[in-house]
Amino acid sequence: MAKSKYEYVKQFELDDSLLPNTWLVVRIDGRGFHKFATAHGFTKPNDRPGLDLMNACAVAVMKDIQDVVLAYGESDEYSFVLHRSSNLYTRRASKIASTVVSLFAASYVFLWSRHFPEKTLQYPPCFDARVVCYPSDSNLRDYLCWRQADCHINNLYNTCFWEIVHSGRSEKEAEDELRGTVASEKNEMLFSRFGINYNAVPEMFRKGSVVVREEAEVTSLSAKTGLEVVRRKRIPTVLHVDIIGEEFWKSRPELLGS
Amino acid sequence: MAKSKYEYVKQFELDDSLLPNTWLVVRIDGRGFHKFATAHGFTKPNDRPGLDLMNACAVAVMKDIQDVVLAYGESDEYSFVLHRSSNLYTRRASKIASTVVSLFAASYVFLWSRHFPEKTLQYPPCFDARVVCYPSDSNLRDYLCWRQADCHINNLYNTCFWEIVHSGRSEKEAEDELRGTVASEKNEMLFSRFGINYNAVPEMFRKGSVVVREEAEVTSLSAKTGLEVVRRKRIPTVLHVDIIGEEFWKSRPELLGS
Amino acid sequence: MAKSKYEYVKQFELDDSLLPNTWLVVRIDGRGFHKFATAHGFTKPNDRPGLDLMNACAVAVMKDIQDVVLAYGESDEYSFVLHRSSNLYTRRASKIASTVVSLFAASYVFLWSRHFPEKTLQYPPCFDARVVCYPSDSNLRDYLCWRQADCHINNLYNTCFWEIVHSGRSEKEAEDELRGTVASEKNEMLFSRFGINYNAVPEMFRKGSVVVREEAEVTSLSAKTGLEVVRRKRIPTVLHVDIIGEEFWKSRPELLGS
Amino acid sequence: MAKSKYEYVKQFELDDSLLPNTWLVVRIDGRGFHKFATAHGFTKPNDRPGLDLMNACAVAVMKDIQDVVLAYGESDEYSFVLHRSSNLYTRRASKIASTVVSLFAASYVFLWSRHFPEKTLQYPPCFDARVVCYPSDSNLRDYLCWRQADCHINNLYNTCFWEIVHSGRSEKEAEDELRGTVASEKNEMLFSRFGINYNAVPEMFRKGSVVVREEAEVTSLSAKTGLEVVRRKRIPTVLHVDIIGEEFWKSRPELLGS
Repeated sequence: MAKSKYEYVKQFELDDSLLPNTWLVVRIDGRGFHKFATAHGFTKPNDRPGLDLMNACAVAVMKDIQDVVLAYGESDEYSFVLHRSSNLYTRRASKIASTVVSLFAASYVFLWSRHFPEKTLQYPPCFDARVVCYPSDSNLRDYLCWRQADCHINNLYNTCFWEIVHSGRSEKEAEDELRGTVASEKNEMLFSRFGINYNAVPEMFRKGSVVVREEAEVTSLSAKTGLEVVRRKRIPTVLHVDIIGEEFWKSRPELLGS
Repeated sequence: MAKSKYEYVKQFELDDSLLPNTWLVVRIDGRGFHKFATAHGFTKPNDRPGLDLMNACAVAVMKDIQDVVLAYGESDEYSFVLHRSSNLYTRRASKIASTVVSLFAASYVFLWSRHFPEKTLQYPPCFDARVVCYPSDSNLRDYLCWRQADCHINNLYNTCFWEIVHSGRSEKEAEDELRGTVASEKNEMLFSRFGINYNAVPEMFRKGSVVVREEAEVTSLSAKTGLEVVRRKRIPTVLHVDIIGEEFWKSRPELLGS
Repeated sequence: MAKSKYEYVKQFELDDSLLPNTWLVVRIDGRGFHKFATAHGFTKPNDRPGLDLMNACAVAVMKDIQDVVLAYGESDEYSFVLHRSSNLYTRRASKIASTVVSLFAASYVFLWSRHFPEKTLQYPPCFDARVVCYPSDSNLRDYLCWRQADCHINNLYNTCFWEIVHSGRSEKEAEDELRGTVASEKNEMLFSRFGINYNAVPEMFRKGSVVVREEAEVTSLSAKTGLEVVRRKRIPTVLHVDIIGEEFWKSRPELLGS
Repeated sequence: MAKSKYEYVKQFELDDSLLPNTWLVVRIDGRGFHKFATAHGFTKPNDRPGLDLMNACAVAVMKDIQDVVLAYGESDEYSFVLHRSSNLYTRRASKIASTVVSLFAASYVFLWSRHFPEKTLQYPPCFDARVVCYPSDSNLRDYLCWRQADCHINNLYNTCFWEIVHSGRSEKEAEDELRGTVASEKNEMLFSRFGINYNAVPEMFRKGSVVVREEAEVTSLSAKTGLEVVRRKRIPTVLHVDIIGEEFWKSRPELLGS
C-alpha cells in the first residue's frame, strides 16, 4: 500500500497566499440565523445574552490568535482584523479564514450554557467566513465604518419595526409603514409614538461591539512565593464605542502603527 | 451616517470561484490535536469514542450539505467530496470550506457529551480547512487512496509504537527501533513479540471511516393516519472498508456518475 | 547600492499556477481590429491575406511551443490548446499567456510583408490573451465547437451584410434587414438575391482554421554525405475542416490521448 | 449550428481581477535574449541601439496606455507602473499584462529597422509578462530601487567581465577572476587595469532608463487657421537618472499623488 504513487495529488493544492503588507479582515457571518434565533427564542430586535455570547466567542478567537488586533461585531456577524504585517500561516487565505471560523463556531457551542443557563442549545450554529485584503489604513477604516454604519441603520430600522409589531400590527404592516422613511423620521416615530429616545438605547445595540487589547491589571498567584502578583497585561476587551470618528484611533495609535 | 460612501470597500472582495466540472474536496485537519488528545486522555494509538465523535460530525455535515457525496476520515482529519456538478455557493472556495469546517467544529462540541458522557470538554477544538479541485475521476480516487494509504501506514506504525511503549520502553526507544522498518517487519513484530495479528485490528483503525449515503428503511409515524410508515431513504452511513480497490466503486456506480 | 534590502518585494509576486491535468486554452483576441482592418484596407467580410497572416503566426507559435497540440483561429482571434499533461512554465498562467501573445504579435509584424508585399504596416497590432482551464475532453471539445459555431454564425451574417452593402444599401439598412433572420433565411437571401451558394464559400471563411501537427515528408541535405535525406516529421499544418463532428477527432486519436 | 449549447464553456473563465488601490507593475522580460543578442551581433556589455529600441517600445506602450505613469527598463526587461487608482480593463491581470507585452513585442519588430537600419531582424523576439500588486507607495519605490540596484550591480559586473574578455582572457577566466569581488574592487580594477572611470560610463548603462510623462512644447498646424500652434503636452520622455533617492520623487509629486 505504497502512499508515494498517490502523492502527486498534493500538487492540486494551489497556493492561496494573500498579498503582503495589506490589512486582512476575516468576516464571519451566521448562516440561517433568523431560524436559529427563532428556535432559541431570541428577543427582538436585540438579544442581550445572544450578543454577549457572540462577544465572548470573539474574545476567545483573539486570545488564541495574537495577530488579530481588533474585532468588530454586530448582529450575527463578526470581523477580525489581522495586522498588515501579519504572517500568520504564511498568509494562506483558507488556513486563516477556516481557523478563525472554526474557533468561533466551536466556542459558540462551548460557551452557550454560560450565557443561556436555562436554554438548551437545539442544534449547532453555522458561520461562513471570507478574508479580504485592504491595502491602506484608510481602506481598513472605511471597511469598519461600513460595518458600524450598517449596524446603526439596521438597528434603527429594527427598533422601529419591532415596536410597531409589539404595538399590535403585523410584520407586513410594519414593513409597509417603514418603507422609504429616513433616519430622522424613524427617530421621531420612536420618540413621539413609543416614548423611546433612540440615543438612550444601549450603545451595544446602536454601535455594535469592538474588541481591542486593552491594558489591565491581572492578579495571579506566584508559583514560587505563593503571594499575589499584579501585572499589567493586554487583554481582549469589549467596548461599545464609535469607531467612525477620529477619537477611537487617536487614542490607540498602536492599532494602525507598525 | 450614510453607509453608501463606505460601500466601495465591497469591491475588495475578490471572486474565489472554483473551476466548474471538477471534484471538490474539502479537507479539514485538527489543529494541535496532540495536545487536545492528551488533555482529554485519549487512548493511544486509537481512541474509539474520539473516532466515533469525528464520524458523527461528518454525518452531521453530510445531513446539512446535500452536495457532499462521500466523506473519508482518519485520525483528526476528514475529507468531504462534493460532486463535480455541484454548484454550492456558486463554488466559492471560502464559502464552501468555511461552512463545512464551521459545521464540523460546532458539531464536535455539540455532540461531545454523547460520546464522552463522563468527560468534560476542556476547551473547544480547532480545525482548519482547505478546498482542492480534482479534474478527473481518477484524480479523485487517487486522492482518496492517498488518504487511506496514509491511514494504513500511520496506524501500523502507531500500533507498533504504542505496543513497544506499553511494554516498558521510552518513546525515544520505540522511535529508534521502528526507524527504517518496512511493513512486513512491523507486522512480524506485532505478531511474534506482542501476539497481535494486525489483520485482526478493527477495520475502523486500519482503514479509516467512509461515509456514504446508503439506502435504508426509515420508520416514521404518518401525521394523517397515525400509523407507522416505512420508507426507503438515503442516509449518511459510516463504513470501514477498502476504497482503494475497484469493489467499493463498482458497487456504487452512482458516486462517480453524473 | 545593496540589492538585498529591496529583494523583499519579490514576495509580492503571487503564484498563479493553473490546476494540473486540465486542458489549457490560451485565447488571443485582436484589440481594435475594426480600426486596424480599415487602416490597412482589408477586404470585407474576409481578407484572405489577413487570415493567411494570422495562420502563419499561429504556425510560428506552434513551432516555438511544442506543448501546443492544436490551434483554432477565426477572424482576429486564435485559440491555442496545451495538452492537459503540459507542465510548460510549471503551468504559470501569466507566463504561458504572455509568451504566446508576445510570439503571435511579434510574428504578425515580422511576417506582414510576406503576406502584404504591397502594403506598408501602419502601426503594430495589439492582442490580448487569457488562459482558461478545461477539466474534461468533452469540455475542451465544446470550447472548440463554441468557437467554430461562432465562426459560422458570424461569417454567414457578415457575408449577407456585405453583399447587401455592396449592392448599394447603407450599413444601417443592412443591419435592419438582417435583424431577427435565422440561418435558413440568410442562406436563401444569398442564393436568390445574390446568386451565392453559401456552401461554395471557401471553407477557410466558413469553418475557420485549425492547426495540427501533421506528419509530412521533409527533405534535407545530410551534413555527412551531402545527399538528400527524406524524413517524416510532424509539421504544424493549417486545415479548414469541421471540428464539431466526430470525424476530425476519430482520425486523430493522438490529440486527446495521453 | 447552435452556438448556445456550447456557451456554458464561458463559465470556465475565472475572474482574475487585481486588488483595488494597489500599484500595478507589469514586468516584461526577454526570453532567450542571450541567443537573440548573439544572433544580431549586439555589442557587449551594452548595445546602444538595442537599448534605444527597448526604450522606444516602452514609449510606444505609454503612448497607447494612459494608465502607465512610469516605466523603468534595463537590459532586456521593462517594468510598467499603473497608478493605484487605475481601473484599466477592470484590473483583470491577464488582460493588462497581455496587452502591454503584445504592444511591446510588436513594437520591437515594427521599430527595429529604425534603430538597426543595416541589420536584418532574423526572427521575432519573445517577452513574457507578469503583473504584481504593491500596496504602499514605499513598496512601489522599493520595487523600483530593486530593479535599479540590479541594473547597477549587473552593469558593473558586466563592464569588468567584458573588459577582461576583450583583453584576451576566456569567459571562464573572467568569471573566476570576478567571483567574490565587491563593488569597490571592481571599480578599482576598471580604473587601474583598464583606465576606465566607472562614473564616466554613460548613465543609460549605469542607471537604466526611466520613462515619465514630461511636459513639453508641441508644435502642430491648426486645422482651422493653417497656422502653427504651440501647446504644452505631457510626453513620455526617457531619462537616465537615479530613482532610488528622494530627489526624483520630490520633483515629481504627481507620480505618487492621487
